[in-house]
Amino acid sequence: MSYTKEQVDEHLNLLKGWTLVEERFIERKYVFYSFMKGISFVDEVATISEAFNHHPLITIDYKTVILRLTSWDEGYLTAIDMKEAQQYNEAFEKMCSNERKNVRQRS
Amino acid sequence: MSYTKEQVDEHLNLLKGWTLVEERFIERKYVFYSFMKGISFVDEVATISEAFNHHPLITIDYKTVILRLTSWDEGYLTAIDMKEAQQYNEAFEKMCSNERKNVRQRS
Repeated sequence: MSYTKEQVDEHLNLLKGWTLVEERFIERKYVFYSFMKGISFVDEVATISEAFNHHPLITIDYKTVILRLTSWDEGYLTAIDMKEAQQYNEAFEKMCSNERKNVRQRS
Repeated sequence: MSYTKEQVDEHLNLLKGWTLVEERFIERKYVFYSFMKGISFVDEVATISEAFNHHPLITIDYKTVILRLTSWDEGYLTAIDMKEAQQYNEAFEKMCSNERKNVRQRS
């Protein structure tokens, strides 16, 4: 069942970096320090979206990866979009946190 | 050195599936039988573009992967765009040909 606009706003408040665009999508831009790091993230995104059987539109513009989600079948946004966005954020945080560990170990 | 419009047209005649868009990009859509097959292709695209140090804009819309190239520094299209597009085509053909072999072996 699709969310109301109020429910979407409520969820977006808790979803770091994601915003409502074109009235029916949620979108986030993730920026990486290298092109290949962004590609690794896209591989993680692919695994997550296969598990949900719900696929975001993915744009890779050099070191920036943009993800856009909506529930086409429901004509708007649903719980699955929010859950999936949350998992993308967790995958991103995990990658960044591993990177910080590696930098500390090298220095 | 950037190509003339005539040189671009000449190269595009030999470059399967690629067309000129918005007057300064060349673009091709590759369609796969699964989302994950498209992701594997993007991984190949990433390796090729790192070798050229020249990165296409990549869009993944479920089973469709769209690549778009231009030479920003030169303000138009150059030999590198055409060479790279050719390598993407070869990677795609190789994936499709391996897939055909697998289908034959399974049947």
